[in-house]
Amino acid sequence: MTLVLGGARSGKSAYAEGLIEACPGPWLYLATAQAFDDEMVARIAQHRARRAGAWRTRDVPLALPEAVAASEGPVLVDCLTLWLTNLILAEADLDAATARLLAACAGAPGPVVLVGNEVGLGIVPDNALARRFRDAAGRLHQQLAARADRVVLTVAGLPLVVKPQAPTAGASA
Amino acid sequence: MTLVLGGARSGKSAYAEGLIEACPGPWLYLATAQAFDDEMVARIAQHRARRAGAWRTRDVPLALPEAVAASEGPVLVDCLTLWLTNLILAEADLDAATARLLAACAGAPGPVVLVGNEVGLGIVPDNALARRFRDAAGRLHQQLAARADRVVLTVAGLPLVVKPQAPTAGASA
Amino acid sequence: MTLVLGGARSGKSAYAEGLIEACPGPWLYLATAQAFDDEMVARIAQHRARRAGAWRTRDVPLALPEAVAASEGPVLVDCLTLWLTNLILAEADLDAATARLLAACAGAPGPVVLVGNEVGLGIVPDNALARRFRDAAGRLHQQLAARADRVVLTVAGLPLVVKPQAPTAGASA
Repeated sequence: MTLVLGGARSGKSAYAEGLIEACPGPWLYLATAQAFDDEMVARIAQHRARRAGAWRTRDVPLALPEAVAASEGPVLVDCLTLWLTNLILAEADLDAATARLLAACAGAPGPVVLVGNEVGLGIVPDNALARRFRDAAGRLHQQLAARADRVVLTVAGLPLVVKPQAPTAGASA
Repeated sequence: MTLVLGGARSGKSAYAEGLIEACPGPWLYLATAQAFDDEMVARIAQHRARRAGAWRTRDVPLALPEAVAASEGPVLVDCLTLWLTNLILAEADLDAATARLLAACAGAPGPVVLVGNEVGLGIVPDNALARRFRDAAGRLHQQLAARADRVVLTVAGLPLVVKPQAPTAGASA
Repeated sequence: MTLVLGGARSGKSAYAEGLIEACPGPWLYLATAQAFDDEMVARIAQHRARRAGAWRTRDVPLALPEAVAASEGPVLVDCLTLWLTNLILAEADLDAATARLLAACAGAPGPVVLVGNEVGLGIVPDNALARRFRDAAGRLHQQLAARADRVVLTVAGLPLVVKPQAPTAGASA
């Protein structure tokens, strides 16, 4: 289980796809995006165009844990951020959904790579919904990171390894 | 002296508490938060509940340097961001306050761990006060980081060591 | 070629200047800032004051690739973010401009250090122009990072090496 976090346009999806494509296929792409406007339609089309034919795609705006649990090989979840947004809009129980996702990842037969937006490194947002979303994303990422074998933060398309990290003089202090 | 930076819900407080709790107690918690609204009251209560009985807590919205200077053992400062906010609201001299904090940390008898929010990695904020705060936070963090023995950036609850960092091929270029 | 990314007040310019000043001079400073308001005038003056006499400064709000191509020694580009802003305001072709910059960096006789703001790690901005800028910055940084010999993210004045990175157990997984 690998968690790939990154900012906007940081290359996190392309990096995550590369991790999955290094495994024997077929590969399952679990898409959580819902196209509410033209900007999102264009973004989804761009992501689909990049993926080659060996990918199967399933749209799971809400039923992500169930889809991970039913997987039979390598799975890419893209992305956690939109899944969380969909859950909040549907007024779902976030703790229960997180628990189901963690259980599904632990039980999946193949590698699972999850992509999420890191959104907590800017100024505190003005509106309460954005703050609530930011808090929920941080809690979800922390719980997944604690269980993940590997966590990376993509910066300008490059992976910065957060877990496991090379030992340093400081780490033993 | 350790500086723990991180985004919202990145696990920076829990990580910093763990650093202090690895030292022999008693442990001093210097809280800079002022509860102006219900959201903040809830957050403070949540932080207090997590800390075990071996912690003593002092509220120091402004007199943080003096409290660090008076400490007799391990000290956790949580957090720099709210201290800076309080200073700006009180129209205090930020350079003088920073100098007092640096001197207090240098003279403290036990380990000092300081927690701060990294807020500079988003889009430039619209309003001038947010920009001013962001600049002040960046300057404060730089000055503390230059003196600190160790600086970490928490990402999804995991520490990314910024100082000292493992040597790389690039570091010698 | 080195890419230095960082948040607001993260010490990226000072760090980049240090990289150039470690090379034999004279050093060329390519400034992309345009002083539209007092805040920017003050910031530019502060940056100029820090640089010693061995620096030559050229203002290139748009013609950055041409200036890099014409360079004869170490060059500092400060910063990509304002160059991109100027291009967007001038309704220039961003892909063509990026291609010219990449070619100029590849052909420059001396070391080139480019400074950019990392702006993608906060909440999604409300307004469409900010989102478009954020996307364009991410794409520009990715293309430069792919070609750069070294990429660092400055955090509180300290360089976090993103490329090349120390090998870890996780990197081989």
